[in-house]
Amino acid sequence: MLKANNPTLKSWVEIPKDSDFPIQNLPFGIFKTEYLSSGAGVAIGNHVLDLVYVHEHGYLDGLGLPPGIFNQKYLNDFFALGRVAIGEVRNRISELLQDNNEELKFSPAREIALVPLSEVQMQMPVHVPNYTDFYSSEEHATNVGSMIRDSKNALQPNWKHLPVGYHGRASSIVVSGTPLHRPKGQIKLPESDLPIFCPTRKLDFELEVAFISCGETKLGQHITTQDAESYIAGFVLFNDWSARDIQAWEYVPLGPFLGKNFGSTISPWVVTLDALIPFRVRGPEQVPKVLPYLTMDGLKNFDIGLEVFLQPEGSSENSICSSNFKYMYWNVNQQLAHHTINGCNIQVGDIYGSGTISGRFPDSYGSLLELTWNGQRTLRMADGSERKFIEDGDTIILRGHAEKDGVRIGFGDCSGKILPSL
Amino acid sequence: MLKANNPTLKSWVEIPKDSDFPIQNLPFGIFKTEYLSSGAGVAIGNHVLDLVYVHEHGYLDGLGLPPGIFNQKYLNDFFALGRVAIGEVRNRISELLQDNNEELKFSPAREIALVPLSEVQMQMPVHVPNYTDFYSSEEHATNVGSMIRDSKNALQPNWKHLPVGYHGRASSIVVSGTPLHRPKGQIKLPESDLPIFCPTRKLDFELEVAFISCGETKLGQHITTQDAESYIAGFVLFNDWSARDIQAWEYVPLGPFLGKNFGSTISPWVVTLDALIPFRVRGPEQVPKVLPYLTMDGLKNFDIGLEVFLQPEGSSENSICSSNFKYMYWNVNQQLAHHTINGCNIQVGDIYGSGTISGRFPDSYGSLLELTWNGQRTLRMADGSERKFIEDGDTIILRGHAEKDGVRIGFGDCSGKILPSL
Repeated sequence: MLKANNPTLKSWVEIPKDSDFPIQNLPFGIFKTEYLSSGAGVAIGNHVLDLVYVHEHGYLDGLGLPPGIFNQKYLNDFFALGRVAIGEVRNRISELLQDNNEELKFSPAREIALVPLSEVQMQMPVHVPNYTDFYSSEEHATNVGSMIRDSKNALQPNWKHLPVGYHGRASSIVVSGTPLHRPKGQIKLPESDLPIFCPTRKLDFELEVAFISCGETKLGQHITTQDAESYIAGFVLFNDWSARDIQAWEYVPLGPFLGKNFGSTISPWVVTLDALIPFRVRGPEQVPKVLPYLTMDGLKNFDIGLEVFLQPEGSSENSICSSNFKYMYWNVNQQLAHHTINGCNIQVGDIYGSGTISGRFPDSYGSLLELTWNGQRTLRMADGSERKFIEDGDTIILRGHAEKDGVRIGFGDCSGKILPSL
Repeated sequence: MLKANNPTLKSWVEIPKDSDFPIQNLPFGIFKTEYLSSGAGVAIGNHVLDLVYVHEHGYLDGLGLPPGIFNQKYLNDFFALGRVAIGEVRNRISELLQDNNEELKFSPAREIALVPLSEVQMQMPVHVPNYTDFYSSEEHATNVGSMIRDSKNALQPNWKHLPVGYHGRASSIVVSGTPLHRPKGQIKLPESDLPIFCPTRKLDFELEVAFISCGETKLGQHITTQDAESYIAGFVLFNDWSARDIQAWEYVPLGPFLGKNFGSTISPWVVTLDALIPFRVRGPEQVPKVLPYLTMDGLKNFDIGLEVFLQPEGSSENSICSSNFKYMYWNVNQQLAHHTINGCNIQVGDIYGSGTISGRFPDSYGSLLELTWNGQRTLRMADGSERKFIEDGDTIILRGHAEKDGVRIGFGDCSGKILPSL
């Protein structure tokens, strides 16, 4: 077990009950405040440990970190140091925050180094050079295939042989809390042969988990399933907003484009792969057998409970689905091995989305497309209103955490509000 | 007419007959030499004008350029100054290089400022934050559709209503001269239900022209067809290498992925939109009428002759097709207006490919897929060998130029050699 993952560790920082950020988590993010410009921090309870400050004041000495590595707008340069270096920093921060460690605990620096979460504005954790979205949940692909074609031919012939994926738009990935305007575009109504131009009528979320890379490869180089984890810094929650009507009209034959690229929202804290190791589980059995370059050993899925909430304007949150990252048919090792098998190069800060994570039961479907079966059903909110798709003023909140041995490793909110079309 | 486009201008720099780089062109690129680190330059005849040097030595004074703007690895910061500023620099360089201008012509600086093209290594001109590929040639889409479906239903219902596009991989775009290894991947042979893993057997090029953006928009903002040109710095030739067998197996339903993202090659010189204004022509008539956000006035296509050469290892070049950028059904103004109609934001340095540019006749098809009709025909090379697709050791060279009133505006080579699989 990694030292920093020990469930018996206690911190001198108060950790509220059900906090996503106990001392066993220590996710990295970029924050700013009214007084501090953007820099790296680590979440602990209801606080952020200011890494710029603790690094500058010698608390991270001996780790060989370059000067100014945390005093940056993005975590890319830090992540580029690699998974081992990230783990060493996490270990050292764990030490500093442990109950029996007095370096910061009894220092006046403590008040400066710990910034209340309520005073920070979280920023994009990384600059994203490339963004790929996979389609790796069998239940989701089956649901969508059943809707578009029929339930007997729901999965395409390639689906069980490779983790289907496509390139998304990096520029429009935004951090939790950023509102988005309802996109406009071409939609074709069933009763007409001609498209019309209007705001989307089928705005949807997609419940995803994404990993962020901390390594780069040269063009032509391949990452094996065995090596894949050295290229993964950690995970965020990911909402791949989708305009289903725009997507349906445009996507044949080259895939989703304007139905997706108006915005994707990520949670601000990068939960390290290290912190999630205790929550590894076996994934679904893969039948037929995969090709040799996709084989792997061990537990490569993660048991992370996921939940989506819809909050109408001025009203309360409604839980609309509960799913789990462990349902993924294709795991992240396989995704990265497949992505690079042709020599495609990866870069530090790349985001790789899982695709919508749906479970077997209707309340575990990770999109409104599936939850309302493309608008054929309605979801009732606590305030009495009903939803087939997202309405203006609605906020969608993704939450997720793993829990075991009394330790809860969470992501914080991945939240976005939809404003009317411009 | 822009001053720098005047066909009567002569330069004191010798311009060889049929040079792509007369004084009316002045494309921007990034070069380095044995002695000089990467910096910006302008092509003129068989030379590069070193912009770092001429800027540092006062020849560009009065243009308000930031210090060090050309002493960089990429043109992004320069392009971010905007289309007007790029035009002013081009104008001033035109002045400096005109026959009647003595500032450099008779200065000892001339020998330092002009570097022979034979001594430079061209680099990627821009860092590419995002890469989109369109599918805007009706002839290409019709050919592909005829092959996959049938010639009566060759175009999908959406094709004439919107410029179909998809997101490509930015990380694997390389500059002309960079060799690529034949990609491996999953292919499914017709006689089996199961895929096999092997090097691609259907490696192809795609003849494209791409534009590079020089502006950025905020998420939610839309660029009109009227404003689109202020966001376009210029154009490069673009080879969207494709592994047809990998692509065929993977691309349903989310589009091309590993069949494309192992590499794309661009020509190193960004030919400005300004330099191409004299070559504007009317595009094909668009029937049915497009939606209002896609309408535009004036001549938005460009008459640029394009040619592709295949050079077997140790043999001579074979011209294998001739096409023209003017064939594009959807023009760049419409592409950018469509891309942003949903609020998708663009960034400086983004690359937007045209999609394969095919003409009406078989010798104008812009890919081997079309030229050999997916391997049903063969192309005979001068050395007696035959091709259905690209073989190891083959070099593919894209060339293109516009010509009018004795002025030839060219791109230089967009060249790439295919090495065996790793």
